This record gives sequence, structure tokens and C-alpha cells, in this order.
Amino acid sequence: MATIAVIAPGAMGSAIAARLHGNGARILTVLAGRSAATIARAQESGMEGVEETALAEADLILSIVPPAEAANLAIRLSPLLAAAVRKPVYVDCNALNVLTKRGVAAVIGQAGAPFIDAAIIGAPPKSGERGPRFYVSGDNLSASVALREMGLDVRPVEGGVGAASALKMSYAGINKGLTALAAVMVLAAGRAGAAHALYAELAESEPELLARFSRVLPDMVPKAYRWVAEMDEIASFLESDDGGRLMFDGAGRVYERLSAECDGDEVGQLKAFAAAAERP
Amino acid sequence: MATIAVIAPGAMGSAIAARLHGNGARILTVLAGRSAATIARAQESGMEGVEETALAEADLILSIVPPAEAANLAIRLSPLLAAAVRKPVYVDCNALNVLTKRGVAAVIGQAGAPFIDAAIIGAPPKSGERGPRFYVSGDNLSASVALREMGLDVRPVEGGVGAASALKMSYAGINKGLTALAAVMVLAAGRAGAAHALYAELAESEPELLARFSRVLPDMVPKAYRWVAEMDEIASFLESDDGGRLMFDGAGRVYERLSAECDGDEVGQLKAFAAAAERP
Repeated sequence: MATIAVIAPGAMGSAIAARLHGNGARILTVLAGRSAATIARAQESGMEGVEETALAEADLILSIVPPAEAANLAIRLSPLLAAAVRKPVYVDCNALNVLTKRGVAAVIGQAGAPFIDAAIIGAPPKSGERGPRFYVSGDNLSASVALREMGLDVRPVEGGVGAASALKMSYAGINKGLTALAAVMVLAAGRAGAAHALYAELAESEPELLARFSRVLPDMVPKAYRWVAEMDEIASFLESDDGGRLMFDGAGRVYERLSAECDGDEVGQLKAFAAAAERP
Repeated sequence: MATIAVIAPGAMGSAIAARLHGNGARILTVLAGRSAATIARAQESGMEGVEETALAEADLILSIVPPAEAANLAIRLSPLLAAAVRKPVYVDCNALNVLTKRGVAAVIGQAGAPFIDAAIIGAPPKSGERGPRFYVSGDNLSASVALREMGLDVRPVEGGVGAASALKMSYAGINKGLTALAAVMVLAAGRAGAAHALYAELAESEPELLARFSRVLPDMVPKAYRWVAEMDEIASFLESDDGGRLMFDGAGRVYERLSAECDGDEVGQLKAFAAAAERP
């Protein structure tokens, strides 16, 4: 039976854990300092709370944390990995730009542990569905076979460490960049009294986009706070593309504003627009 | 027979002129200083070249120019309008932010001529098709009835001068913002060696977006130079939305780079991505 550590038991981490557990894996995680709701979710997902030192017993460690915490986690675990006789394979699954991901890989490499660059595209696993796609790249992909056998939709990407992350950055840039654009323009149309006219024009000439906006605008609100750091990662990923970087600096500020707002006026306007779009 | 001045005989202006002419209007324009190709296109569209002073004889003047020239045209024509006994209705059809459009309206208002805020959404008219939509707002919409009778798909928007422009800004922000996002992320994926993986992932999870990109990325290239100023207008339209403004400052720089490049390496990559997306 494979032993897999999943850090942390967030929405994505616990859903991945549940799928692996359902296919026979033992799942370790760290629950110290987590809320009662998170601990309950972790236990429902078959996750076993252990001391951080016990993570070295795992065959694989999946890092699934907010982007800003990914490097810290690797640095914190590296002495443990360095001391382990049988090294776990460290799988960084976070939405990081290529340089950050390579930095994490270097930390893990110095500890002597194998590293896999991974990127998750799609919503958290649900029973009965195949997704999300679990892209992997690097020189140690053989260890990812175990993840495929335990129900993940593992897909190798050529190009070494950084390739899976580059795919994730590009895809998320389109996806979450478009949601930011929609939020900005719906709110601006509203300020100018043109939200209804914009709705009508989209319904006629861009019905697919309108249907998408009605779905993604309300979905975005509770996630906006997490997307701020992801927009920063995408901006860094764009390197010498000054225009592209500005676009994602801007998207980060938009998500920051909307997450600070919570149930404020702008969020209400976005939800109202989305609800109007759902009407036949 | 209505006499309509259309300034200038660009791609949109001459196509609008052709539809109006085909429905019985006499069309005036100014051809001084234009290229042989433009003059030929204007003549094919039924446009009559006249001195600028003769424009005051028109029933309506349609301003259809690059956004950066819209205010200058109004200022240049205002003495003519002030001197005219029978004032033409001045219809500014340009993609301007609300404040700029109101500025143009004020110039025309001082000259004593009626003003219509108009915004064109969709591709230039083709025979056999109804579009584009020709949105109008303001207090002098009765004059737009003539345009509807001559084949334009005229649609009033409530909210006075600025409402049609606000709709245009919001719609163009989504549309052209998305194209900029797609260009940025396709190019970034390419730099990281992940363009093929991005293509495959989009084909699986976002086939509608992929089909759109294959159409809009090559179409954008010859228009990118015009979109730079339009991105500036959208950024100004966003006023206090700092994040949104950054996004469109960035999109403007992206279009500036791509238009300066012309047939360069990045344009080639965008066309290659679009061509791959067209394959079954």
C-alpha cells in the first residue's frame, strides 16, 4: 500500500486525498493549527494527521498549498528529507511560475530527494468524474505511475521541471485573466448605466461568453483572495513581456479588491449580472 | 435624398457608406491626401470626394476615424458647423471613453449642431448581412431614423450622450482584452516550450475558446496598431478602477509591440498556434 503525504488539507488537497485513499493509498497530512472544519474534512477524506517529522515515511509528498507558501514548505521539509534514508518523491503541485518552481526543485534536490513538477488543471476531483488533469514534468516521472494507478488523471508534459508549471501559468492566465476582464467591464458598464445594454449585446453576439460569465463570476468571489498570489506568479512568468505583466498586475489588484470587498456592492453587481444571464 | 458625410473612408467608414449609398443616400467625404487605394475604395463605395467646407451641406456627418483623431476632427469642423444655417447632425461613431465623447459633444454643441453618440459593434457591413449594430444615444435620436431607413441596424441606448460609448468600451474591453490575453499567454507558453501542451489542454477543456483564438489571433495582427489607442480609451473609461486600468495599459502595450513587429517572430508564433487550432 502506497503512503502519500498531502500538504495541506485544503479544498483541492483533501479532494485529491479522498481519491487516492479511495483507491487504496494511506494518506498522511499535518493537522496542527487547522480549524475544526478543516480537520473534519481531512478525516472524511481519509487523511491521517501526523507530526511533520513523520512525513518522511511517505512514498510521495504532494505539496498543494497557496502559491505564496510553496517555497516555505519545501524549505521547512528539506532537513527532514535530507535526513531520511529512503527519500520520498516531492511533488510540487502548486500554481507557480517556472523560476519559482525551479527554486523549489533546487531546495528539494539539495536535500537529495527526487522532484516532480506537477500542475493541476480543473476543479477538485469528484467521485464519478475523471478530472482534474494532473500534469507532471521532470526527470523522476516513474514515481507518478503510482498516482495514476490510484485514480489521478496523470499526464506527462515534455520539457523537464518547469514545463507543467508553464502550462498551468498559460492556462490559468487565459482562464482567470478572462474572469478578471469580465468583472472589470461588467462593473464599468454598471457605473456608466450600460450594464443592461452590455448584457443584451453579449446575449446576441457572444452567448457563449455570457453563459461563461454567469458561471464564473459568482464562482470567483470566494476564490478571489487565493487568485491574487496566482496573478503575481503569472506576472512573473511573463518575464520580459512588459504589457502582459501589467495585465496580470492589474488582474491581481482586481481580485484583491473583490476579495477585500467580500459581500460588498461590486460583488453584488457581479452576482446580479450573472443571475440576469441565467434567465432564458 | 439624404446627404450623409462619412469621415473618413477607412475600412469601416467606406463599408458603412456603401450600405447607405446602396439604399439611396448621397455620400460625401474628403479624399485630399488619401492614398490611391483609399480613393479607389471610396469611389467603389459610392463616396463623393468634396472640399471639407462642403460637408456642411450634409444632413448628417458620421465621424468614423481612429480614436485619437476624433476630437481633432470635431474641433476642425466646428467653425464650419457654427457658420452653417442648416446644421448637420454630428454623429460621433468612434470608440471613445465617455468623458472624451462628452468633450466632442461639447465642441459640437458650442457650434450649435445636434449631436448623437454612436458606437459600432461588429464587423463592417457586408451585403446580405444585417450587422454591425449601430448603437445611438443622446437627445437628438430622431435624426438616426434616416440611418435605419438606409439599412443600418440602428439601436437606441438609454442614458444620454456617453451611454452608447460606455457600451462600446465595455464590450470592446471584453473582446479585445481577451484577444490580448490569448496572445500574451500563447507567446509565454511558446517561450517555455509549452505551446503544444496548452493547445492540447484548451482543445480538451476549452474548445470554444480555442476556436475563437484561431479566428481572432490572425485577424488581430493587421488591426493591432488601431487597437493601441482603443486600449487607452478603455483604460481612461475605467477611471477609479486601478486594477482594470493596469490591465488595459498592459493590453495597449501588447498591441503596440505586436503592431511594431508586423511580420516578426511573435506574430508568426500566433499564426502558427491559430493554424494548429484549425486542424481537426
